[in-house]
Amino acid sequence: MTDSTRLRGIFTPNIVPLDSRGEIHEAELRRYVDWLIERGVHGLYPNGSTGEFTRFTAEERVRIIEIIADHNGGRVPILAGAAEANVRETLRACQRYYELGCRAVAIVSPFYYKLSPAGVYAYFKEIAKNTPIDVTLYNIPMFASPIDVPTVRKLAEECPRVVAIKDSSGDLPHMMRMIDAVRPIRPEFAFLTGWDAALMPMLLIGCDGGTNATSGVVPEITRKLYDLTLGGRLDEARSLQYRLLRLFDAMILHSEFPEGFRAALRLRGIETGKGRQPQSPGQQLQLDKLSTELQCLLAAEGFTDEPVGGCPVGESVDPEQIARIVQGVVGELKRRGMA
Amino acid sequence: MTDSTRLRGIFTPNIVPLDSRGEIHEAELRRYVDWLIERGVHGLYPNGSTGEFTRFTAEERVRIIEIIADHNGGRVPILAGAAEANVRETLRACQRYYELGCRAVAIVSPFYYKLSPAGVYAYFKEIAKNTPIDVTLYNIPMFASPIDVPTVRKLAEECPRVVAIKDSSGDLPHMMRMIDAVRPIRPEFAFLTGWDAALMPMLLIGCDGGTNATSGVVPEITRKLYDLTLGGRLDEARSLQYRLLRLFDAMILHSEFPEGFRAALRLRGIETGKGRQPQSPGQQLQLDKLSTELQCLLAAEGFTDEPVGGCPVGESVDPEQIARIVQGVVGELKRRGMA
Amino acid sequence: MTDSTRLRGIFTPNIVPLDSRGEIHEAELRRYVDWLIERGVHGLYPNGSTGEFTRFTAEERVRIIEIIADHNGGRVPILAGAAEANVRETLRACQRYYELGCRAVAIVSPFYYKLSPAGVYAYFKEIAKNTPIDVTLYNIPMFASPIDVPTVRKLAEECPRVVAIKDSSGDLPHMMRMIDAVRPIRPEFAFLTGWDAALMPMLLIGCDGGTNATSGVVPEITRKLYDLTLGGRLDEARSLQYRLLRLFDAMILHSEFPEGFRAALRLRGIETGKGRQPQSPGQQLQLDKLSTELQCLLAAEGFTDEPVGGCPVGESVDPEQIARIVQGVVGELKRRGMA
Amino acid sequence: MTDSTRLRGIFTPNIVPLDSRGEIHEAELRRYVDWLIERGVHGLYPNGSTGEFTRFTAEERVRIIEIIADHNGGRVPILAGAAEANVRETLRACQRYYELGCRAVAIVSPFYYKLSPAGVYAYFKEIAKNTPIDVTLYNIPMFASPIDVPTVRKLAEECPRVVAIKDSSGDLPHMMRMIDAVRPIRPEFAFLTGWDAALMPMLLIGCDGGTNATSGVVPEITRKLYDLTLGGRLDEARSLQYRLLRLFDAMILHSEFPEGFRAALRLRGIETGKGRQPQSPGQQLQLDKLSTELQCLLAAEGFTDEPVGGCPVGESVDPEQIARIVQGVVGELKRRGMA
Repeated sequence: MTDSTRLRGIFTPNIVPLDSRGEIHEAELRRYVDWLIERGVHGLYPNGSTGEFTRFTAEERVRIIEIIADHNGGRVPILAGAAEANVRETLRACQRYYELGCRAVAIVSPFYYKLSPAGVYAYFKEIAKNTPIDVTLYNIPMFASPIDVPTVRKLAEECPRVVAIKDSSGDLPHMMRMIDAVRPIRPEFAFLTGWDAALMPMLLIGCDGGTNATSGVVPEITRKLYDLTLGGRLDEARSLQYRLLRLFDAMILHSEFPEGFRAALRLRGIETGKGRQPQSPGQQLQLDKLSTELQCLLAAEGFTDEPVGGCPVGESVDPEQIARIVQGVVGELKRRGMA
Repeated sequence: MTDSTRLRGIFTPNIVPLDSRGEIHEAELRRYVDWLIERGVHGLYPNGSTGEFTRFTAEERVRIIEIIADHNGGRVPILAGAAEANVRETLRACQRYYELGCRAVAIVSPFYYKLSPAGVYAYFKEIAKNTPIDVTLYNIPMFASPIDVPTVRKLAEECPRVVAIKDSSGDLPHMMRMIDAVRPIRPEFAFLTGWDAALMPMLLIGCDGGTNATSGVVPEITRKLYDLTLGGRLDEARSLQYRLLRLFDAMILHSEFPEGFRAALRLRGIETGKGRQPQSPGQQLQLDKLSTELQCLLAAEGFTDEPVGGCPVGESVDPEQIARIVQGVVGELKRRGMA
Repeated sequence: MTDSTRLRGIFTPNIVPLDSRGEIHEAELRRYVDWLIERGVHGLYPNGSTGEFTRFTAEERVRIIEIIADHNGGRVPILAGAAEANVRETLRACQRYYELGCRAVAIVSPFYYKLSPAGVYAYFKEIAKNTPIDVTLYNIPMFASPIDVPTVRKLAEECPRVVAIKDSSGDLPHMMRMIDAVRPIRPEFAFLTGWDAALMPMLLIGCDGGTNATSGVVPEITRKLYDLTLGGRLDEARSLQYRLLRLFDAMILHSEFPEGFRAALRLRGIETGKGRQPQSPGQQLQLDKLSTELQCLLAAEGFTDEPVGGCPVGESVDPEQIARIVQGVVGELKRRGMA
Repeated sequence: MTDSTRLRGIFTPNIVPLDSRGEIHEAELRRYVDWLIERGVHGLYPNGSTGEFTRFTAEERVRIIEIIADHNGGRVPILAGAAEANVRETLRACQRYYELGCRAVAIVSPFYYKLSPAGVYAYFKEIAKNTPIDVTLYNIPMFASPIDVPTVRKLAEECPRVVAIKDSSGDLPHMMRMIDAVRPIRPEFAFLTGWDAALMPMLLIGCDGGTNATSGVVPEITRKLYDLTLGGRLDEARSLQYRLLRLFDAMILHSEFPEGFRAALRLRGIETGKGRQPQSPGQQLQLDKLSTELQCLLAAEGFTDEPVGGCPVGESVDPEQIARIVQGVVGELKRRGMA
């Protein structure tokens, strides 16, 4: 039977700490789980996009869930990413995560090949018919085949095992369309947003929670934003949402995802180790710069000290101004016959 | 001097009624202006995308503003669409709309050619330096060159004449990024959303109003949604936003924009006439079907009677179910050697 | 009656020279027409995208055709861009260009609004029923509503006045699909490519010619490439196509279209004047740099002298190397307490 | 040491036959390898996109190469798809395929996450430094992070182990830009196109061959097209390219990739079994319809009988129409002295 409790709250898509050889750093992962739960996240969400599930082997993905389920010890519900190479392998993972006591699995829509809505439907239908554990659909159209509204509705209608959707599109009207299509027929179906930048408005139009990467780095803020919004303290919530947006943008816009989150997490004292995706010298340089910027943002929230050189007060330089300066320099060099 | 009042509220981007020869139907346009103002819209916004500014000649665009300014007689502020073939022609329109007493102009980012941020900046900068009337930037990335956050900030910083941005992207975090970048330096700068589907959440995160096509068809609802949201009556607002979304989707998703809005407006009793963009027989058929659907939605809101045949209660048919039925029929025919 | 001669060869989409006040520079435009015809282009194509038709007023667009038709004096066929605000205005332009003796008009698919295939069909059908002059469809999906293969086929089937398509997508299989769909029913229908980068292969799979922006700058090369390809001298043609690609890329990739073409044309001795789209200081700087690069490319083809400082022999700088250099500089500045 | 022979010719990306339980059907896979080699393909390319590498487990991917390498017995070179979860796993696969005697591996750019050019570079650089076997870069921007021209050039310059690129974008000027950037510094570097629709023009502008899905279904045609084009028999090649385009479109446009290829292969007598991606009833219905259409196309080429009900005389398979098109094109080119 499907668990009757609707999924709710902030589920943290955790980064997996790696040791110096690039292997799963089990001790640090366990410490990280405690750190998150102590800071108030409602649930854990391993093997998500932030958790770089595609960069681990199938065996490692299972191992990650085993460690987290064991260490969690039933304290918070676990939403386990279970997407594998094909339906059969995915169902095998579902069975294993069911045995480990996970609350539900999250399964991303097929990726690499771009499937039509009919293909996406057929894939989830086949899984839903055979899974022993509740399923959360995972829609992330920038990375995987999109799950459209009629498909969500049909799966919700036909499959009791499909109990939620996690949507990382950040498209607010799309979320409303899904809620409008599904709530009347499945009142306990949950809607989770994966787009931290819009968490407050998403909650205000009816979402049940989020699977938010920021909650792995600043769980205090993400959780507080959730509480303030649900508590109707909108002015405080709005202010916090703007601060969270700055942090989110800093982590997501200027580096290869999820390197910005890894860098910030390191500043919070978790030994993440290096990621498995190699970084070019230019990228490494940018990450170092980003790390200083993140330290300033985290210091402003009281989570770290300011970096040694202090934090900037003013604005960043305008590229058009730089152009004008360069124009001046080039003109001067030309005048002297040097360019 | 720039008018110190911040732009606020719902500005209606009006459709232009045409007569049987396809010419501007002046009498009906005047009647429509009264109809809108009586139903509570805060301002008028002629020559917008809903107003199909590109399908009128330069002379007609001026004529539309003249009629509306004259008939409005100062009752509500007018935001006049002023984009013309190039900077000089646009400035000529600015001058004319200034003389007509418009509150401000709205200028869409250059379209057809896709300009870089630097090109978009140069274009608006040149206009802002020379315009006698306040300027609202108009960002609609699905149709025109996008105006990015640094460009908005730079223009807000350098150009007192630029007093607002109308953003029709529907991207909520993008709106927050603009507000975050501009409010500290220009507290009176206004942010208007052109995406009706997210009006309530946009207002909740700090928008000052909207230029919403639905307000040209159901001004009562759009205005009420604005009032409820600003009044903090969130449960009622949320419910209304969901109803507005259904109307908006019906008008925007199943026909060539803005034909759905024209069809709905006709149901409200405004003689819109036919649009200038020809419709194929198939499109005409679909518009007739849409009109019945719209009549049901408008009847549910109490604005019209139900269509003669009544309105459906159930759901539309599932294409996969149809497929299964067809499969059955084909299989049967094959069994009988008939296919 | 439709002219029975199939459109063929290289039609030049000309830039319009402007004087110091930004007005059409008639004398230079006339000189440019001679310059092009003397260098062998098969036809002229004013009011195309390269001709920035959207940046002129309706009156100016007519004036441009009048000047060119008058000065051409029947020497080469003219394909006149005739897209106006709506069907009626477009037909008015068709009538005028017919009277001026143009061979055909080219009409770009509706832009700004993104029309469905049905809408695109309805638009061209309405024009084709009423035009006195042959029509070339103009497909440029990066700027305007795409014209898909079934629409081209249907229009070719139903409308004798539609005699050609100009396709600027650069998509070779798409061109083959159109040829495959239309040639059997309209053997005299012409297929022109607007994508200079693929002119040789496009001709080899059956295209009749091109409307190529490079032919306005280096008509000698574009024409020779056409002749070599049709003459079966593939090794020479291939080599020339590679050289043309370098020129084309230089003009199109590093500036706001068509500024690169304008800069190159100036180097060929045509007084283009400044364009109407303002350029930011940063863009102006980049254009100056581009002009030097173009001069080197044109000098290598024997069309100009090398710039004063000579041309580079080596390669452009690697961004990763720059990153390493910047890292060094920043580190040094930090060491000195300057950053 | 890098093998000095440049990769050349048609490498077939094979579908993997599955048995009734969905397992690799080894006997049929071996039979298929013989079938392909007998029909003239120059090489084999297992674990490509057509081979659905993402739908097999890591163990199965190795097993597929083992079977094919064993059965091939050195008859033709093998290009083995070696993309795994991360650099280390990929290098492990490289080592294994090296031991199995494969000619080279093909490694698709990282997918799911969309990497920047710097990230793509860092990934391949790390692999290229450590691989014991030659590497073919695999660019398929519709599914994976794009590999841009500067990245290809830099990798070609720095990494002797990188010996080729397979590009499935179908973008002809992009291919020319790569050839232009790399040939001068690495004359033995190979360029293979994965886009069957443009095989002839790609070969004519300098490609060395293709990894073409059609060659797994109609190897006779793909191989002949290659031979005719390289032999300079352009009229015959062009005609064949148009016929191949029709087959390619039928297989690729109307079903979930690679179901159309699987359906066609079944018609050629290979027991492919069902694919691992579930198909909805609607999709299944469409596949049945497609299969009939494919049978007609294959029958027209003499590879199968017509389906029981016969083939339509009208549109897609009318040999007279094809004859007329080809006749038109050839006649036209002859008139111009080209054929």
